[in-house]
Amino acid sequence: MRRASALVLLCLFTCFSGVGRGQDARFPGFATASTRLQREWEQAFRGLPDPNVMRETMQRLTARPHHVGSPYGKANAEWMLARLKEWGLDARIERFDVLFPTPKERLVEMLEPTRFTLRLEEPALDTDPTSNQKSEQLPTYNAYSIDGDVTAPIVYVNYGLPDDYEELERLGVSVKGAIAIARYGNSWRGIKPKVAAEHGAVGCIIYSDPRDDGYFGGDVFPAGPMRPKDGVQRGSVMDAPLYPGDPLTPGVGATPGATRLDRKDAATITKIPVLPISYGDAQPLLAALTGPLAPAGWRGALPITYHVGPGPTKVHMRLQFNWDLVPAYDVIARIPGVTHPDEWIIRGNHHDGWVNGADDPVSGAVALLEEARAFATLVKRGWKPARTLVYAIWDGEEPMLLGSTEWAEAHADELRQHAAVYINSDGNGRGFLSMGGSHSLEHFVNDVARSIDDPDAKMSVWKRKQLQRLSTAPNAEARTELRERDDLRIDALGSGTDYTAFLDHLGIATLDLGYGGADDGGVYHSIYDDFYWYTHFADTNFAYGVAMSQTIGTTVMRLASADVLPFDFRGTADAVRLYLKELRDLLKARQDAIGERNRQIEEGVFRATFDPRRPTVAPTTEQVPPHLNFAPLENALDTLTESARRYHSAVERLLSGDGHPAPEAARALDRLLIDSERSLTNSAGLPGRPWFKHLLYAPGIYTGYDVKTIPGVRESIELKRYQQADAEIVRVAEALTAQAALVDRATTIAEQASARGR
Amino acid sequence: MRRASALVLLCLFTCFSGVGRGQDARFPGFATASTRLQREWEQAFRGLPDPNVMRETMQRLTARPHHVGSPYGKANAEWMLARLKEWGLDARIERFDVLFPTPKERLVEMLEPTRFTLRLEEPALDTDPTSNQKSEQLPTYNAYSIDGDVTAPIVYVNYGLPDDYEELERLGVSVKGAIAIARYGNSWRGIKPKVAAEHGAVGCIIYSDPRDDGYFGGDVFPAGPMRPKDGVQRGSVMDAPLYPGDPLTPGVGATPGATRLDRKDAATITKIPVLPISYGDAQPLLAALTGPLAPAGWRGALPITYHVGPGPTKVHMRLQFNWDLVPAYDVIARIPGVTHPDEWIIRGNHHDGWVNGADDPVSGAVALLEEARAFATLVKRGWKPARTLVYAIWDGEEPMLLGSTEWAEAHADELRQHAAVYINSDGNGRGFLSMGGSHSLEHFVNDVARSIDDPDAKMSVWKRKQLQRLSTAPNAEARTELRERDDLRIDALGSGTDYTAFLDHLGIATLDLGYGGADDGGVYHSIYDDFYWYTHFADTNFAYGVAMSQTIGTTVMRLASADVLPFDFRGTADAVRLYLKELRDLLKARQDAIGERNRQIEEGVFRATFDPRRPTVAPTTEQVPPHLNFAPLENALDTLTESARRYHSAVERLLSGDGHPAPEAARALDRLLIDSERSLTNSAGLPGRPWFKHLLYAPGIYTGYDVKTIPGVRESIELKRYQQADAEIVRVAEALTAQAALVDRATTIAEQASARGR
Repeated sequence: MRRASALVLLCLFTCFSGVGRGQDARFPGFATASTRLQREWEQAFRGLPDPNVMRETMQRLTARPHHVGSPYGKANAEWMLARLKEWGLDARIERFDVLFPTPKERLVEMLEPTRFTLRLEEPALDTDPTSNQKSEQLPTYNAYSIDGDVTAPIVYVNYGLPDDYEELERLGVSVKGAIAIARYGNSWRGIKPKVAAEHGAVGCIIYSDPRDDGYFGGDVFPAGPMRPKDGVQRGSVMDAPLYPGDPLTPGVGATPGATRLDRKDAATITKIPVLPISYGDAQPLLAALTGPLAPAGWRGALPITYHVGPGPTKVHMRLQFNWDLVPAYDVIARIPGVTHPDEWIIRGNHHDGWVNGADDPVSGAVALLEEARAFATLVKRGWKPARTLVYAIWDGEEPMLLGSTEWAEAHADELRQHAAVYINSDGNGRGFLSMGGSHSLEHFVNDVARSIDDPDAKMSVWKRKQLQRLSTAPNAEARTELRERDDLRIDALGSGTDYTAFLDHLGIATLDLGYGGADDGGVYHSIYDDFYWYTHFADTNFAYGVAMSQTIGTTVMRLASADVLPFDFRGTADAVRLYLKELRDLLKARQDAIGERNRQIEEGVFRATFDPRRPTVAPTTEQVPPHLNFAPLENALDTLTESARRYHSAVERLLSGDGHPAPEAARALDRLLIDSERSLTNSAGLPGRPWFKHLLYAPGIYTGYDVKTIPGVRESIELKRYQQADAEIVRVAEALTAQAALVDRATTIAEQASARGR
Repeated sequence: MRRASALVLLCLFTCFSGVGRGQDARFPGFATASTRLQREWEQAFRGLPDPNVMRETMQRLTARPHHVGSPYGKANAEWMLARLKEWGLDARIERFDVLFPTPKERLVEMLEPTRFTLRLEEPALDTDPTSNQKSEQLPTYNAYSIDGDVTAPIVYVNYGLPDDYEELERLGVSVKGAIAIARYGNSWRGIKPKVAAEHGAVGCIIYSDPRDDGYFGGDVFPAGPMRPKDGVQRGSVMDAPLYPGDPLTPGVGATPGATRLDRKDAATITKIPVLPISYGDAQPLLAALTGPLAPAGWRGALPITYHVGPGPTKVHMRLQFNWDLVPAYDVIARIPGVTHPDEWIIRGNHHDGWVNGADDPVSGAVALLEEARAFATLVKRGWKPARTLVYAIWDGEEPMLLGSTEWAEAHADELRQHAAVYINSDGNGRGFLSMGGSHSLEHFVNDVARSIDDPDAKMSVWKRKQLQRLSTAPNAEARTELRERDDLRIDALGSGTDYTAFLDHLGIATLDLGYGGADDGGVYHSIYDDFYWYTHFADTNFAYGVAMSQTIGTTVMRLASADVLPFDFRGTADAVRLYLKELRDLLKARQDAIGERNRQIEEGVFRATFDPRRPTVAPTTEQVPPHLNFAPLENALDTLTESARRYHSAVERLLSGDGHPAPEAARALDRLLIDSERSLTNSAGLPGRPWFKHLLYAPGIYTGYDVKTIPGVRESIELKRYQQADAEIVRVAEALTAQAALVDRATTIAEQASARGR
C-alpha cells in the first residue's frame, strides 16, 4: 500500500502550511534551527502510519480472547515482541505474577415473587464471527468480588453513589441486609459495591440499563453499535482509589521474590459479592419490585415502572472464584537517545482485553505499534532522537492496571531518575482529539494538536476541537475563553488507565491522548467488542488510527528532540487558579445549601410538602460548613504564577537566538524539569490513601475514574472534614511553593545560559 | 353526616385564629365592621360542604358517559337543575346548538414494512365498573379533525412544535407529503396538527408516550393511576387560539336564529385529518421507522430506538365524521344581590366529560354544587349577598368551551354591563392551591387563601403553597421574593377552560382556582377517568373537594359582599413590570443567540462538527433582531404604578373608619372597577386573531393552552415581526395609560368620599 502512503505524505507537505502555523515559528522547547530540522522529520514520520497495517494488526490481535493470563494474551505479547524485533528495535518482555480471580461458580436466581434463574451469558451471533469462542471467553463477572452466597431482598439504588443513598434515606428505604441492584454509569463500577457495603448491603448486582448504553442511545448490536439485551459489561471492582495494581503487592513490583500480602489482608478486594448482569436479566427483577416509586432521575429505559423496593423481589446469589496468580506480559521496546540517553520519553497502551477487546484496547495498541514501526523506519533513514524512547504495551490493564502499575513500581527508582514524560492511550475512535495530562505540558500538547490534520474536517485537529467546544460551551464566558485563550484547556487526569502509577504514584509528568466522540457504542467489556463491531461502527477505515499515530508520534518526537523539555508552568498556575475558584465555589455552595435547608426545616417546608400517601423522611438540620483559610494557597499560587512567567521569558530568550543552547545548560534545565512534577507530590500521599502522592490530581474516592483536582482539599470539603481541609490547603501550598522554587532555579540557569550566549 | 360537619366547623373556629390573620384585620374591600359580620357568615359557610354528598353526586354524574349531545349529558343537566331548584334557587337551563363532529369511520393501518391494523379501542377492565359502557362511549378521536383518506410515510416530529421542525430541518427531514406522528404533551394538542399542516404534512397522528403519562411516571391503571397500554387521550384539535366555541358562530351566541358560517369557511377546523392513538398502537409504527436517530430529548419510554424516519413505515388513515349540530345545556342559577343586584359575581365549572369524566370535570362540578347548596342554606338562615351570584355549570367545554363561550357571546352586552368577576374551576385534586387570574385580584385571592385550612397539612393553604414554592424555587432570588413579598404571585391565564370568553373576549376580571399537584394520573380524556379511578387514586375522601368549595365559596362571598370591589392595581402593575423584564430578556436572548450562531457559522463550527455518517444541514446566517422601543410601555407602567399606589391609599383611608362608605360612592367606585379589566382590552383584538381582545393575557398561537403575557409584543418578537412588536408596545402602553386614568378617577371618588366621611 505504498501509493496511498505516498499520497498522504504529499498532501501533508502541500496542504499543511495552509492550515497550521507558519514555517518560521518555533516549537515549544526548540530553537529556531532545531525546529526546521524537526519539522522535516515529523512530516516524514506522519507519512508512515498505514491504515491497512492497522486493520491487519487489529484482526490478528483480536482473533481470540486475550485477557491477562490467557493463552492468546501470551501469544499476542510474543507476536508483538517479534514484530518490534523484526523492525530492528531493542525489545523484551517483562513478566509479573499477579492475583487475577476468575469465576468458578456464578448463580443468580429470583426466588420471589416468582422463580427465575438469570442467564448470565452473552449469546453468540451468526453475523459476528468471533462471538462464538465460548471456551476461551471469560464469563461475565466483576473481578475482585469476594466469594459469597447470599439470599436477600433487592433494593434499587440507581447508580449506587452516596447521593443516591441520601435520596433512599429520604424515601425511608435502607439496603441493610439487602442486595443492592445498581445500574452501570455515572461513576466507575467499583464505587457501587463499595458504597453498597458501606450502607450494610450483603451483595451487589450491577446491570446495564438500556437508557445508558442500550436501545435508548441507538440501534443495538448487530444492527447498530449499542448494547443488546443480553450484553454484559465485565470489569474490575477492586477499590482502586485506594491503590491500583496487584492487590497483594501494593507499592512494589509483583516480581517472583516480592513479599505478598495474605489475600484476606488485601484491602482492595470487595467486602461483598458483586456480579454484573444484562438488562435482559435485570428486567424481571426490577419489574417485580414494589415500594416507593423511584425518583424521576433514577428511571431508566426499561418498559416498566421503576420502584425502589424492598419487596417482593428476593434473590439468591452464589459466587465462587479461582484466586490464582497469573503471569502478566508487558512488552517493552527502547530507542536509545543520542544526546540525553538518560532522559526517557515513555509511551504506553495496554494489549489485554476483557474478551476480544478490539476497541478496548487494540484500537489504541495498533496506533502505538504503527508509531513504533514508523520510528524504526526513521531510525533506518538516519533519524536520531536526543532522548530515549520507551515503548510499552501493557498486560493486565483490565483487572486494574496490573502490568503498568507493577512495572512502574518495580522500576520506581530508575523512573524517578529518568522518566521525563509518560504518554498514554487506551483505545481510539473517530471524532475529536481529547487531551489530558499535566498542565505544565498544556501549551506543548496544544502545539502538537495544531500540527495534525483532521481526517474528516479540512482543518487541524486543534481547530476542530476548539470549534467543537464552542458549539457546546455552556455560556458566553466559556465561549470568550475558547476564542481568546491561546491554548485549549486540557483535562486533569483521574484514573482508569495505565498512566495512574506514573502520574499519581511516581509524580511523572503525563499526557493521555485519544480521538473519539463521533460514535456511540454499547459493547464495552462484552464479547461484542471485537473486529466485526469495530470495523462496522467505529473508526472503520482507521483514518483516526492514523491520526492517532501521527498525534502521539509527533508528541513523542517533539519531546524526544526538543533542545529543552517543553514544560511551561504558566499552564499549571492557570489550572490551579481555576481549581481554587472551584473549591471556593464548592464550599460556598455547600454553605448556602445547608443553610437554606436548615432554614426550610425551621419554616416547615417539609411538613408542608409531606404527602401521607407517599411518606418521606424529613432531613435534619446540620451544621453549616465553616469558612476555610485559603490564603496559603492563594499566596503560593501568586508565587508560582510569577515564577512561571519569569521562567517562560527566560526560556524564550534562551531559544530565540540562532544556534542551540549550550548542552550543559540544557541538561541542567532538563534535570530540574524532570523533577518538576515530583514537586507536586507528597511522600505521605493523600489522606487515607498513601499510595496516591500527587496533590493536584487523583481519582475520586467516590468517582473511581473521574478526577478530583486538589483532591486533599476537595474531598475533605465533600466529606465534611473541615479541619483536614485547612491542613490540606497548607500541604498543597507548600508543594506549589516548592515547585516555584524549582522553577526559579531553572530560570536562573536559563538566564545565565542566555547571558553567556550573548 | 351532621356530626362531621359540626366538628369541622368547631375546628375552624378554634384553630383558625392561630394560623390565619388576627380577628381585627380587614378583608380587602371591607370596612372593619363589615369584616366582622362577613367572617361569621364565612365560617358558617365553610362548615357546610359535605364530602359524602360530593361522593354521591360524583357517582351520579359519572354513572354513564356524558359528553355534549349525549342522553346522559342532558339527564345530568336536568338532574342538576332539579337539585338547584329543590334547594330553593332560581335556576334554568340555556340551550345552544353547536357543531360537534363525532366519528363515522376511523381506520389506521400500517401498510409497510409489515401490515398492522391499529386497535383504536380502549378495552373494558373487570375491576372498573363503568369501563364497559361501550354503546355510549365516544370512540377515541380528535374533535374538529376534517374528514380525510391519506396514505403516506410517517415522520416522528416529537411534540410537533415549531422548534421540533427546526430540529428536523437540521436533520434534513421534511414532513411534506408525510403523516406526522407527534406525541402528546408540551403544548395543547391542537397545535400539533396545525404546525404539521403548516409544514406540508397530509395527516397527523398523536400518541401518548409512556414517558409522558404512562408507566414511566408510575404504575398503570388499574394497578396505579397512569395511562395503560391501550389508553387514548381524546380531545379537541380546533384552532382555538384563533377563537374557541362553536366554529360556525364566532363572536355570537349559537342560538337558534344565529347566522352560521358554512362549515368550509370555519377557520378553526383542522386542515388535515388527525387521530389520537395509544402507545400500544404507536409502538409498531415507531419501532419500524429508520432514518436519523431522534435527538435525545425526543426519545420517549417505549423500549425501542427512536428514529425520525421517513421510511419504511407507511400508513393509511381514513377518517369520516358526522358533522351534526347538537344541543349544549348550560345550567344557570342566580342568587340576587340585595344592595348591588346589577353587579354579578359569576362562578362556573363545566359538566360535560369526554366519557365518564370524573376527574375532568365532575370533581370540580361537585365542589361547585356544594357551594350552591351551602349558599342556598345560608340564604335560608338569613344571609343576603350585596351583589348577585350567578352559578353556571357549562356544557360542551371539552370540544372547546362551547357552552361557556356561546353563553358569554349571547349575553355579551349584559355581561359587559354587570359582570364584576368570573371565577372558574375545571376539576379538582389533592395537594396545593393553584391560583390564576387577573392581577388586580392577586392581593384579594391571596387573602382568601390565608383563610382556608389545608386538609392534610396543619396550616393555611396559603402557607402551604408558599412553602411548597420555596421547596422548588430555582434560585436564591426567587426564595427571597417568596419570603418577603406579601402575596404569592398568581398565574396569568392562557386558555383551555371556560374562563376564556369572559377574560379574553369580554375583558371581565377572572380567577381560576383548584387544588392539585399531589397525585399523578394518566387517564385524562379516556374511558378510565371515572368514579373508580377518582376514588382510588385522586382526592379519594373528597377532603380537597371540601377545601375547594370552601375556597371558591369564600371567594364568591367576599366578592359578593365587599363594601367596595377588592381590586388592587398594584398587582397589575407589578405583573406588567415582570413581563416587561421578560420581554427585554427574550429580545436580548434572541439577539445573543442569533448573533452567536451567525458568528459560529462564520468560524466554521458547523463544518467542524459535521459528521459524514450522520449528515446534518448547517443553519444559515440570519439578521440579528433590532432593538425595540420599550419606552412607551415603561412610561405607561410608571404611570399605572403610581396610580395604583394612590388608589390603594385612598381606598385604605375610605375603609379604615368605623362605618361603611357611602352607598353612592361605593356604587360609583364599583362601576369603574367593573370596567377596569376592559381598559386592558382593545376592540381590534390581537394581531391576526381579533376575537382575543385582552392585551395582557392570551393563549399562545403555538402553545394553545399556555399563556403568553403581553401577547401582541411577545409573539411578535417570537415570530420575528419586529415592526409589529414596536406597534404592539404602543397599543399596550395606551391600554395601561387608559387603566391608570380610570384608576385615577376611582381615586378621586374614594378621596372625596373619605373627605365627606370625616
